Amino acid sequence: MTTLPLLKDEELSPEAQAVFDEIRSLRNTDYVNNFWRALAHDPVQLRATWERLKVVMGPGSLDPLVKEMLYVAVSVANGCSYCIHSHTAAAKAKGMTPEMHAELLSVIGMASQTNAQVTALQVPVDEIFQAG
Amino acid sequence: MTTLPLLKDEELSPEAQAVFDEIRSLRNTDYVNNFWRALAHDPVQLRATWERLKVVMGPGSLDPLVKEMLYVAVSVANGCSYCIHSHTAAAKAKGMTPEMHAELLSVIGMASQTNAQVTALQVPVDEIFQAG
Amino acid sequence: MTTLPLLKDEELSPEAQAVFDEIRSLRNTDYVNNFWRALAHDPVQLRATWERLKVVMGPGSLDPLVKEMLYVAVSVANGCSYCIHSHTAAAKAKGMTPEMHAELLSVIGMASQTNAQVTALQVPVDEIFQAG
Amino acid sequence: MTTLPLLKDEELSPEAQAVFDEIRSLRNTDYVNNFWRALAHDPVQLRATWERLKVVMGPGSLDPLVKEMLYVAVSVANGCSYCIHSHTAAAKAKGMTPEMHAELLSVIGMASQTNAQVTALQVPVDEIFQAG
Amino acid sequence: MTTLPLLKDEELSPEAQAVFDEIRSLRNTDYVNNFWRALAHDPVQLRATWERLKVVMGPGSLDPLVKEMLYVAVSVANGCSYCIHSHTAAAKAKGMTPEMHAELLSVIGMASQTNAQVTALQVPVDEIFQAG
Amino acid sequence: MTTLPLLKDEELSPEAQAVFDEIRSLRNTDYVNNFWRALAHDPVQLRATWERLKVVMGPGSLDPLVKEMLYVAVSVANGCSYCIHSHTAAAKAKGMTPEMHAELLSVIGMASQTNAQVTALQVPVDEIFQAG
Repeated sequence: MTTLPLLKDEELSPEAQAVFDEIRSLRNTDYVNNFWRALAHDPVQLRATWERLKVVMGPGSLDPLVKEMLYVAVSVANGCSYCIHSHTAAAKAKGMTPEMHAELLSVIGMASQTNAQVTALQVPVDEIFQAG
Repeated sequence: MTTLPLLKDEELSPEAQAVFDEIRSLRNTDYVNNFWRALAHDPVQLRATWERLKVVMGPGSLDPLVKEMLYVAVSVANGCSYCIHSHTAAAKAKGMTPEMHAELLSVIGMASQTNAQVTALQVPVDEIFQAG
Repeated sequence: MTTLPLLKDEELSPEAQAVFDEIRSLRNTDYVNNFWRALAHDPVQLRATWERLKVVMGPGSLDPLVKEMLYVAVSVANGCSYCIHSHTAAAKAKGMTPEMHAELLSVIGMASQTNAQVTALQVPVDEIFQAG
Repeated sequence: MTTLPLLKDEELSPEAQAVFDEIRSLRNTDYVNNFWRALAHDPVQLRATWERLKVVMGPGSLDPLVKEMLYVAVSVANGCSYCIHSHTAAAKAKGMTPEMHAELLSVIGMASQTNAQVTALQVPVDEIFQAG
Repeated sequence: MTTLPLLKDEELSPEAQAVFDEIRSLRNTDYVNNFWRALAHDPVQLRATWERLKVVMGPGSLDPLVKEMLYVAVSVANGCSYCIHSHTAAAKAKGMTPEMHAELLSVIGMASQTNAQVTALQVPVDEIFQAG
Repeated sequence: MTTLPLLKDEELSPEAQAVFDEIRSLRNTDYVNNFWRALAHDPVQLRATWERLKVVMGPGSLDPLVKEMLYVAVSVANGCSYCIHSHTAAAKAKGMTPEMHAELLSVIGMASQTNAQVTALQVPVDEIFQAG
């Protein structure tokens, strides 16, 4: 039910094929998931998205597992089913335990509740929370 | 510009006062921020929110700093200014470095972008992402 | 800080003036709030919005106060500050007591929490909830 | 397609089983819907959600049917399909007539439209809408 | 899985039938899509929605194709699958090429990213962006 | 009220300075708006955002004005005040007339309304809207 057909390997442009090769190599698997197969209709957008994703989700001062959980949190708030599924799977693959998953859900639920309460009450920001 | 006046200490009901005492004690500060002063009109809701927040944000398998960053991520996606300010401040107080803050922003930006791309493309969930 | 200047009475087109006259008459007040003064740049959109609002918020099988509270609930979830302020004020004017306001906030907070939990868990709809 | 398997009765922890018993008893039905079966992986979160829901949706100054319609309104704005289905069904069970349902939809549609218009125009809040 | 059954032609009220006749005539096709069949339970809401849609999406200073792409952009940000599908199809029918579709997706993705970055940073509006 | 101080020219790193130079040169103005001054704390994110924005908003098959209006539409649905202001200003600078602005607002309002109606009704996608 995509709005553009998912591209099979044999339908890729050379530029898209090159990105798929990198995805396979970096992830050490032959499987390329549907997001990339839909995005491959536009090799420039595919390349830009992949390049940036590598940097953002790559090594840094935040743990890769933390980054996946942040990704899940944003995806839940934005209501993106595909993203919730794919990044929850990625978080599990990176070591998210059932206890961590349960806490992730609790924080997302709690934040969503207080976000709504604050918004309904239109609470003004305390001066002590302002950046210098 | 709240939709209910912020309550001063001397305007609190005894039930609300008891929650404020706990907030001050647990946080080791005399300062009680505006959210609680707006919520204090309903001591039952105040108590329920505070009790649950203590559990959710308290010790567990996720680091307290990670929980604050998750809270920021959800608050950004929900567009809650107050919550973004208060939980960014809390994250800094719990040790979020400028590098970590920058990575947090990058993940939020990246997730928001791919959430939108996936939604625009209506990508179906890959079977391998489904829970058993 | 509007993206279009708020129109003063003397700047209105005759078509916009006619809508303002109706607003004043129906609401029994000389005050016309900022939303209409911003929308007045496009008399067709102004007229269409006003006509439909009269029907939707007018007499029917739901109590006018209930309709205002529903309006607040949607506006909170959509993060529209102006709308939260104006419809909370309207609900108070139509008889919303502090107790009802507190319950409204509780339901909005609860729904936002479980919405997020359900979305994070990607719960499938039970067959018994499906319309025939 | 949940991100966690739905738990069957025989897979519940004693703490989760106790909550299920209360749900069955209070609702006077043997059926426990999928939300609780997904949430049951975390008995603490399950218990906290159920306890709060009972209070929020229980007797008060707002009619139970009004609370269900408010729940639907928030769920629509948050795009939670499961919640829209389950709370629309609950509202019907509590007496929502086709006429009331039609008006609920109209208010949700109208609010969503004017929320967007106000946001696009960035209309400043009128002084008369500010709480004292 | 609608929350109200889709109405067949023979189930329509005369008022709803009249709107369907206009839809068929204006669009020059016998096919009436599901949205109208769900909305037809409330002939007043059906009529109001159809009347306004005709004006908004009709001839004006913006190209009809541009209007369809704007509709897609809003629908993506609001996460409405049905609307994304129907208006993407309408945009294609009005001449949206694969290149235009790819650019539409790019702008939606980019805007969603910078929206989130700006919100996370809580950037104040520059004076030069304010309307006079 | 940013969560990070806006950087002045003399506080920029050389990498950030280089991006500012390009912004000034491409836009043919000395003015660099607040978004970039907040993002400049992370020169890598600044550079990546600027590079991608140039491509996405640059020449292509969609008119630059259309792209700005699409940006406004997404920003409204996401509730980003800053983005609404800056891209409405950019659209005006690129030739958006008052008539076009009014139509843009109408489409955004209409889409938001029908998005909500469709979501409330949970309308299934018609087969004819599915991509081949």
